[in-house]
Amino acid sequence: MTRTPEDPISFTQTALSRVRADAPLVQCITNSVVVNFTANAMLALGASPAMADIPQEAGAFASIASGLLINLGTPRAEQREAMTEAAVAANTAGTPWVLDPVAIGSMPVRTPFSYQLRDLRPTIIRGNASEVIALAGDGAGGRGVDATDDVETALPAATALAAQTGSVVAVSGPVDLVTNGTSAVRIANGSPLLTQVTGGGCALGAVMAAFAAVDEDRLSTTIAAIMVYTIAAELAAEKSTGPGSFAVGFIDALAAIDGDAIAQRAAIL
Amino acid sequence: MTRTPEDPISFTQTALSRVRADAPLVQCITNSVVVNFTANAMLALGASPAMADIPQEAGAFASIASGLLINLGTPRAEQREAMTEAAVAANTAGTPWVLDPVAIGSMPVRTPFSYQLRDLRPTIIRGNASEVIALAGDGAGGRGVDATDDVETALPAATALAAQTGSVVAVSGPVDLVTNGTSAVRIANGSPLLTQVTGGGCALGAVMAAFAAVDEDRLSTTIAAIMVYTIAAELAAEKSTGPGSFAVGFIDALAAIDGDAIAQRAAIL
Amino acid sequence: MTRTPEDPISFTQTALSRVRADAPLVQCITNSVVVNFTANAMLALGASPAMADIPQEAGAFASIASGLLINLGTPRAEQREAMTEAAVAANTAGTPWVLDPVAIGSMPVRTPFSYQLRDLRPTIIRGNASEVIALAGDGAGGRGVDATDDVETALPAATALAAQTGSVVAVSGPVDLVTNGTSAVRIANGSPLLTQVTGGGCALGAVMAAFAAVDEDRLSTTIAAIMVYTIAAELAAEKSTGPGSFAVGFIDALAAIDGDAIAQRAAIL
Repeated sequence: MTRTPEDPISFTQTALSRVRADAPLVQCITNSVVVNFTANAMLALGASPAMADIPQEAGAFASIASGLLINLGTPRAEQREAMTEAAVAANTAGTPWVLDPVAIGSMPVRTPFSYQLRDLRPTIIRGNASEVIALAGDGAGGRGVDATDDVETALPAATALAAQTGSVVAVSGPVDLVTNGTSAVRIANGSPLLTQVTGGGCALGAVMAAFAAVDEDRLSTTIAAIMVYTIAAELAAEKSTGPGSFAVGFIDALAAIDGDAIAQRAAIL
Repeated sequence: MTRTPEDPISFTQTALSRVRADAPLVQCITNSVVVNFTANAMLALGASPAMADIPQEAGAFASIASGLLINLGTPRAEQREAMTEAAVAANTAGTPWVLDPVAIGSMPVRTPFSYQLRDLRPTIIRGNASEVIALAGDGAGGRGVDATDDVETALPAATALAAQTGSVVAVSGPVDLVTNGTSAVRIANGSPLLTQVTGGGCALGAVMAAFAAVDEDRLSTTIAAIMVYTIAAELAAEKSTGPGSFAVGFIDALAAIDGDAIAQRAAIL
Repeated sequence: MTRTPEDPISFTQTALSRVRADAPLVQCITNSVVVNFTANAMLALGASPAMADIPQEAGAFASIASGLLINLGTPRAEQREAMTEAAVAANTAGTPWVLDPVAIGSMPVRTPFSYQLRDLRPTIIRGNASEVIALAGDGAGGRGVDATDDVETALPAATALAAQTGSVVAVSGPVDLVTNGTSAVRIANGSPLLTQVTGGGCALGAVMAAFAAVDEDRLSTTIAAIMVYTIAAELAAEKSTGPGSFAVGFIDALAAIDGDAIAQRAAIL
């Protein structure tokens, strides 16, 4: 792919086609709450998810996967061991990987553990403002899984984190922010209903890993993932009568979204 | 809140408004089968769920949470350690907590473990008739997760259990029974479809924890939780074509239920 | 039941009625991704699922259950211990059990572990072509959870595996193949949407266990399980607008499917 971030809509359309054509194998080591929703989101998108999350297998799988998600939502001891193994193997194999440091800040196990993973230099880091601030080392984190900080407040932390790790950093919120440390892009698509479905943010991390599998321009693939995901949310919200029907419609929308919807609705700032 | 149990409909309407206004942080240490459904039910209701269930974090979280659910459906060793830690921390911090002793009776790990938790004096105990009888120490339990005993049969056990632990005890069935050891209230709302969705009972335990977070009259908040939950089930059942669509519609109904629906449908005996 | 495999439609109709009448208690030791969907599929079908998957309880439960599923999707160490315990107890008690060797082949933990379970002689083995070939010992397995081999390619391996273990072996694909080592039956029902829902195959293993609970002719009950499951998928596909609504409609269809739909749609080759 030769398109550049300067042409994000066209890039996103092409990247989505690539995901559907390649069906990238995306390993998801994620939390027990969202694992089903995440797998279904991946299948709807056209990717091939595999939830290989036990020691000895996690590393082997990360070596052959096209992308990897590590999500700290419910990090059991055995899963933490698998996460480290997978991140190391991904780095060795050149597999792009996404770190989602769910609810870090004051939580005494996952917070120091997230710093270890951060220092393994994830390809992409995704979190809400409080999580990104905490991962950058200069905040106390949020309240459970909810951000108590504003997205724009997290810009300095996101920029510093990107500079420190070489990661693309994405901050989720009403307007999503993505930075590689030098450029910052904002995407204003989405629906508040996405925050009323558990895994609304977590599954996005897996989608970012799927898009990262099809192009090495990870700033652009991260933007593409967010656009596809949040525009699908808009399509679903228009047909839903509450968070239950929205979640179902969102999976349908991820399967149905096409280049026209992306072109018509993209709200990149 | 100054309303009394003598005015349960008005109390329930006010308590629901409080849950939506406060978005209480409810920690759920629950089984792998229902964890997604439980989180989505909490979000639909307006509460803020967090599934922090690993040792060292569970206790820290229970200290700051507004409510806690401990559900014994799939009690892994690591999770059992987290459960004890959380219950102890909840007691120290004054966080109300709900114990759901799923499938105890003859099961050799969870049954003695449930007695340990019972002796930590949960704020609320919720189960089917067989589970409540088993937790009170005078029954052999049910068949898997299904009750083999009748709700009314469990009244003596529920009353004794409430007297022994100081807990409010709720027995689920076609007619739900709630007692604090001295008063017993019955609620005849609900739908048989709720028994055809896994987690139909388990998520109610989380809803009880959310309501317990907004008022110290736990007999009344438990009744309120059951009313909101079972009336939402009635609303969903009327629009569903089977257990799949019912589960989706139930989440929508939990988000949409209002004071009028409660007033019109409440069937407190 | 006296019907024979020569009369598979009538057999299936009767077996479905038996499942609904008996509500067999089916223990499912399965992966974290599909556990909710599996439980809901069982409830919709009319069976009574119980996800008892911890050591010390798994064996006790397998002794009293009417059927057992062991699915290797996310085999944590504690769960592997429970699986072996349950398989041994099932053999002792005469409980029929299904082995689903998810993603075996090159995965270094589950592959040797699946051989141990195979050697305990499951009642039924269910997998895709690559998994069945790998379990028979003459293949390198698939790519993650997806088969890279064709169903018919797996016929020699399935036949050999059935002869070796005494198991009925079912190979899933666009056309499903079932063999007891001497007879091979093909079922051409289903929908491609089933492959776009995570657990589309895994839940079938639980359904096979439920049907095995009601009749000792396990070749016929396995065929019956596949027919009911894949015809329900056809019914759901006709009303769905994508994989999200399909998954919901599929649960509704499992609850609604009747003997007429089976007779009209059965595509046994």
